[in-house]
Amino acid sequence: LAEGERLELSSLLASLNFNSDGLIPVITQDADDKQVLMMAWMNADTLEKTLHTGLMTYWSRSRQAEWIKGKSSGHWQQLVSMRIDCDGDTILCQVNQTGAACHTGRRHCFYFKVSAEQQEVVINSGLS
Amino acid sequence: LAEGERLELSSLLASLNFNSDGLIPVITQDADDKQVLMMAWMNADTLEKTLHTGLMTYWSRSRQAEWIKGKSSGHWQQLVSMRIDCDGDTILCQVNQTGAACHTGRRHCFYFKVSAEQQEVVINSGLS
Repeated sequence: LAEGERLELSSLLASLNFNSDGLIPVITQDADDKQVLMMAWMNADTLEKTLHTGLMTYWSRSRQAEWIKGKSSGHWQQLVSMRIDCDGDTILCQVNQTGAACHTGRRHCFYFKVSAEQQEVVINSGLS
Repeated sequence: LAEGERLELSSLLASLNFNSDGLIPVITQDADDKQVLMMAWMNADTLEKTLHTGLMTYWSRSRQAEWIKGKSSGHWQQLVSMRIDCDGDTILCQVNQTGAACHTGRRHCFYFKVSAEQQEVVINSGLS
């Protein structure tokens, strides 16, 4: 692929490196402040649905089912931009997050902070 | 785990959800402008080395070997902070990046932008 080259979405989907379960990891980042909110997985079908609907739609590995983020919680994620990495095995999406990204009610999922000096983990403050 | 609770690093490592290959995905983000630079993988050993040395050290799945980022390219990543997500299966690191994170010479790996409206992919401009 060369600079400025354009590619049909179907060709792209065919060339993505889904893993042996047919899944690809998706990093979801807040479009405004660039906080990484969560990481989850999509298959080809939920990836297409995300692009068509503009609502982040993952594949739940635990439930083995489509997971429209916010459908049960109201915490929708509206897709702002989607990017794919150099070797086609990771997706980065920027979103407008309604409410909390994390199922614990926190704004994002990365609330365990590792303090290397003290060789310990501290849970950070608040539901932020 | 409760708010403010402290945990030995060894206990943390034992409780992380490494995948069936003994690996955990690591999202690497620029500490200054919050750009997501890349995603790669660590095993328990390279995770400990990253914490001890302060240099991002991954496990290369293609080479099946330890990968000290920057050792051959000079494009080191100094660890600024490490966080773990709610279900212990993803790591988020903020780093100070020397040079380019991507092996293509670009600052980050996510340079394929998907344009949903046009059902196509466009490679974005420049090595930025």
